[in-house]
Order: sequence, then C-alpha cells, then structure tokens
Amino acid sequence: MIRVALDAMGGDHAPQAEVEGAIAALALLPGVVVQLVGQVEVVEAELAKHPGVDRGRLEVVPATEVIGMGEKPLAAVRKKPKSSIVVGLGLQKAGGSDAFVSAGNTGAILAASTVLLGIHPGVERATVATPFPTADLPVLVLDGGANVDCSPKELLGFARLGSVFARDILRRERPLVGLLNIGEEDEKGNAVSRQAHELLKQATGINYIGNIEGRDILAGHSKLGHVDVVVTDGFVGNILLKFYESVARLILRLVKRTAPDILDRADVQEVFRVLDYAEYGGAPLLGVRGVSIICHGSSGSAAIKNAIRVAAQMVETGLNQHIAAEFAAGAPVA
Amino acid sequence: MIRVALDAMGGDHAPQAEVEGAIAALALLPGVVVQLVGQVEVVEAELAKHPGVDRGRLEVVPATEVIGMGEKPLAAVRKKPKSSIVVGLGLQKAGGSDAFVSAGNTGAILAASTVLLGIHPGVERATVATPFPTADLPVLVLDGGANVDCSPKELLGFARLGSVFARDILRRERPLVGLLNIGEEDEKGNAVSRQAHELLKQATGINYIGNIEGRDILAGHSKLGHVDVVVTDGFVGNILLKFYESVARLILRLVKRTAPDILDRADVQEVFRVLDYAEYGGAPLLGVRGVSIICHGSSGSAAIKNAIRVAAQMVETGLNQHIAAEFAAGAPVA
Repeated sequence: MIRVALDAMGGDHAPQAEVEGAIAALALLPGVVVQLVGQVEVVEAELAKHPGVDRGRLEVVPATEVIGMGEKPLAAVRKKPKSSIVVGLGLQKAGGSDAFVSAGNTGAILAASTVLLGIHPGVERATVATPFPTADLPVLVLDGGANVDCSPKELLGFARLGSVFARDILRRERPLVGLLNIGEEDEKGNAVSRQAHELLKQATGINYIGNIEGRDILAGHSKLGHVDVVVTDGFVGNILLKFYESVARLILRLVKRTAPDILDRADVQEVFRVLDYAEYGGAPLLGVRGVSIICHGSSGSAAIKNAIRVAAQMVETGLNQHIAAEFAAGAPVA
Repeated sequence: MIRVALDAMGGDHAPQAEVEGAIAALALLPGVVVQLVGQVEVVEAELAKHPGVDRGRLEVVPATEVIGMGEKPLAAVRKKPKSSIVVGLGLQKAGGSDAFVSAGNTGAILAASTVLLGIHPGVERATVATPFPTADLPVLVLDGGANVDCSPKELLGFARLGSVFARDILRRERPLVGLLNIGEEDEKGNAVSRQAHELLKQATGINYIGNIEGRDILAGHSKLGHVDVVVTDGFVGNILLKFYESVARLILRLVKRTAPDILDRADVQEVFRVLDYAEYGGAPLLGVRGVSIICHGSSGSAAIKNAIRVAAQMVETGLNQHIAAEFAAGAPVA
C-alpha cells in the first residue's frame, strides 16, 4: 500500500475539498491509503457527511495546529510543530508515510519539506515543477516560484530534475528541454540565461534543444522542435504561472459578455477544462528526499484527487530513486 | 498636417499590409499625411493595385536598402544608411516627418530610433510600451523587451514614461502603476524588484499602488486596486508578451478541436478580436525625442492602420513635450 498524507486543514476549501478529494482518490486508486492530517474533530465532522465511506484505507492523523495562508513560512513552521504541514511531513520523515499533499501555505510547505525531508546529495536547490496545460501534452515549467534568483548551475539542476519527472510521470521517453529566453540566438538574454544556455548545451544526460521564447510554451514546440520541460528562474516562472491562471478567467469574462449561451455547451466547457489547472494535480517539489506536492490554495476536490494520484505515481515509479541515481552520477557537464 | 513615415519594406506582409494600412488610415484620419518609405518601384507597384487612391496625402520616400528580419540590429543600421528604417527616422530627425511606424526588425528600429532621435534629457533608457488587451481597458506593460537587465532607477523611469503615455493616449486621468512581482508584500521578489518597490513607493509624480502579481495584469486590478501601467524588466516583459500572443492560438486550436462550429459566429469572433493585438496599434518606444512605433512582424493592414493612428495621436497630444517636461522637472524621488 502507498500511504499518502493529505493536509486536511490547508487550502481555501478545507476540509471539505480535501475529504471529498481523498474519497474520490480512494475509489480511483485501490493501492493507496490516505492519511488525513488535521484537527480530529474537524476532520471527523467532515467525514460524517459521507457515512458510507470505507474507513479501511482512510486514516485520521491528529495535528492540533494550523498554519494560516498569511503566516510567514519559516517562522510558522518553527512555531507550530503540531501543525498539519509539519506533522504530515514529519510522518514521512519517520517512515510512517510515503508522500505529502497540501493546498496550504506554499512557503510553509516548501520550508517544511526542505527542512524535514532534506535534499538529495548533488541537488543544489529543490524546485517546484508546474505543468502548463496545452492543446496536446502538458509542458513542465520549472521553477514555479521556490527560487527567485538562480545561478546557471541551479538552472541546469532544474533541467535534470524536470527531465526525470517528465520521464517517470509525464511518460516522455526522451524529454526535450528548453531554456526560457527572449530569442533563440546564443547571445540573447540576461547574463544568467546566456551562461545557463552554454552550460545546458554542454550538459550530458539531458536533451537540450536550446533557447525558447514565451510563445513556444503553449505551442509545445519552438522552431527547434518539441518541448517537454521549460527551465527558468522562480521569478519569471511564478509570474508566468499566475498570468496563465488568469487567462481562463479573462476568456470567461469575454464570453459571458459577448456569447453567454455557448457556456452551457459541454464541448465549450471542455475548452475551459483544458485551461483549468485542477486536472493537473498540483505542483511537485522536486529534489527533496521524499514526495511533496503543493496544490493551489483554491483547489477543489478534483484537484486534490489528482494530486493524490500524482503523489502515488511518484512513489510507484520510484521517482526519488531515479533522482538520487541521476545526481549521484556526479556533474553531468562534459 | 501630421506626417507619419511608414516603413513600407518592414514586416512579413510588406509592402501589401503597409500600403493597405496606410490607405485605411488616411480614410480615418483627415489630418494625416503618410510617407511610404521604401524601394520606389516596389511601393509604386503595390500602390498601382489601388488606382482610385488620393495621392495628395500619400507620399513615397525613396529608400533603396532593406534591413532583413534576421540581421544583427546595430551592424545593419550602420551598414545600411539607405534602408527604410534609417531613412524614415532620418527624415524625422531632419524635421521632414513627425512620426515613424515600422513592422520590421525590432532591434534595428530600437537602435536606429535611439541613435537618430536621441533620448530626452533625464531619461536613462528608452522603453517599449506594450498594451495588453483585457476585458476592459488595455493595461500598459513596460518594458516589452528593449532592456533586458534593468536597475531600480530605470524601472522608475519606465513607470514615469508609462504614466505620461497612459494619460495622453490611453486617456487615464490618474494612471495607477504596479510593479510586477511574485507577491504583494514589501519583501517579495529579487534584489532589483525589492529596491525598485522602495524607490517607487517614495517617488512623486506617479501613482504607485505597490507590487502586483502575474494574475493581476489581465484582471486589470490587484487586491490593491485598479492597474493601468505595469512595470517590469524587458526580460520578463518580453517573455510575458510573447506568451500572451500565443494564448489566442491555443484557444483557437482547442475550439477547432472540440466546438469548431462556434468559430463562424460573429459574437465568438469578437472574443478573439479582444485577444488579438492587431487592434492595439503596435508598441511605442517611449523616451526618445520623437515618435517611433514598433509593430509586430506579422502585422496585417489593421495593425498598421492602428499604429498610424496612435502615432498621429502621440504627435497631436504633445506626448513628447509632456515627457520632456516630466523629466526636466528633475528626479521625482522625495
């Protein structure tokens, strides 16, 4: 059995979205146990709304404290050892769980994951990998906001971590990596991107296609070919991610104003579903010695369910062993 | 009469889009003369397709050379003094024209504009201002790619230049400025954005609302209020601009696949029109002593027409005098 600890107190719709997401995940994934981490009375009250649910694969793990969305991450993690985030990740550290999923305070999940799980030897910084939906396969953009300023070497590390995830979870046999830049030529970009481009060109073990541009992400390819993994620093990645999240809302506003009747159509709703992050199951933190998935604060039950599914897949495929092997092999630069 | 020089040789659809755009602009703007700059035989051959056109406000200015899209900007500007870009801007410098519009090599337009027109005293760097369409009024994002690495002081300069443009051309009485960042709090972002935030907070003469996030651009507001002008460096701005340009293509692909019949509807086409940059008339280069508008290489006649309209408006409203006054008043920091 794969044990996934789920922060029952995190997110804007907790504990309802979490409990419903957990129940949906269990129906989908027979080999998974969900550990609901949170205030027992709150979680049990929510569970009581689902009287028919099989408790055999649904555990409740007590955590009396809650880290709020607005709290300073590192201080909150230190001050609240009994919070659902710290308890859930502590359980994984102690060997009592295989993965952690939370829609709570992103900074606190990042800090607690790094501190409690630690980082694989050879990894410089853990990175948030965010799948961007496209018309075909999702494209993985990293870093999504964990690392604001990045050295060229750290960007190379993100390329390697993203490549392992793309192989194991996104099922890309030979993931192609692009560096996000403002043009394709070698000399384009700022100092860091120019150096990173040279480093990535020389790197072995990854399939680097070259500099790509903003328009190539949603297209899923640049002039140089297909793209699976897009590398950038967390400043650009986070701005782009939030910008993309707002696109569906813009389209919805425009359609509501000019052609509201089409919103009732199932085929039109399908277009919005592609733009919706919910289907893509949260953003995994890669590079830590364990499994930690960060969900959007506004996650509903479908997003939680998918995050549990991805967490279980990360355990099942041995993603961490693959990352450990990739980085234990030493520097990949020729 | 306002004289707008139009590069007849620039862009993917030149000279057809340029000639058609010029003719459309003249019908719309009775006080404008368009100067078509390019190879006379090429331009005249295109004009011959419009036998009824009134040549009274349509001049042809000879320029025997053409700068290609792939040429190195600065070298091309130096090597080709008879190119349409250099001749068109040279005409403005010599007093024979009031504004320049081109869909040609962006880097070459930037270089030639800066060299030939010069920069207003007090302006550190000229900036490309890109209007982002939203559900309501467009939001002006700058820098759009002219300045890859920016100091906090340069970002402040962009805020001031953008504010003047928003007042004069976008008709915002009191333009509100946001700094693009990864969170609203003072301590968020990289070193440059933290310093820029402090500088903008202290600045007088602009209306700074604070740090904004990627999602706030298309919304047209952050938690802190409405946003008219978004300041960021040219690396982030260019990536974001190109990403946004690709959104309409993604939506079109998705709709074509799932609900192709709605594409025939005029009300649905209206949604795509909002997402289409063509309506917004190119990106003005602000800070130079003159008027220079950079159009997308793929501009059609509607985009060219709108760029001529904006160029004429920039002359008419006295944008340059307002920028000169704003920057002559000295450093705006309290």
